Amino acid sequence: MTGVEILGYSAGFITSLTFLPQVVKTWKEKSAKDISLLMFVIAAINEVMWIAYGILKDDWVIISTNVVVLIMSCIMIFLKLRYNNAKN
Amino acid sequence: MTGVEILGYSAGFITSLTFLPQVVKTWKEKSAKDISLLMFVIAAINEVMWIAYGILKDDWVIISTNVVVLIMSCIMIFLKLRYNNAKN
Repeated sequence: MTGVEILGYSAGFITSLTFLPQVVKTWKEKSAKDISLLMFVIAAINEVMWIAYGILKDDWVIISTNVVVLIMSCIMIFLKLRYNNAKN
Repeated sequence: MTGVEILGYSAGFITSLTFLPQVVKTWKEKSAKDISLLMFVIAAINEVMWIAYGILKDDWVIISTNVVVLIMSCIMIFLKLRYNNAKN
């Protein structure tokens, strides 16, 4: 594995974790009033495009990263719809 | 420009817009209580890694996309710190 590939996989791994703190925060606090639904809808559609791009370029950094982010985005859409009206 | 490149640039363009609805919502509502600061800090660090990866792979889809997302992430960190305590 080259240095570039190590950097790419490291970057991809961190990207896949990017939405996780938001998922955990929203899950715990059960409040999503300040969250933009549109952001996560755009993200989900966009991940599908990136997965297709990764497949066409045979780039597993892009494919694997975006599959995880797609799942996170779908969870955030669910949490936003469920906890849109904050209790506090 | 090939079909793959068109897909990549389209995906990159949409990625660069992903955080925009959140920036606009937080800017207008002046409330960021439900936003995860950690998410945008991770995103900002991660964008720097992706920009380096894009430079090393000479991939302008990756470079240009992540420069815009880095700027958006920095704006969100600023807005989160400024509007962390919601008025309502």
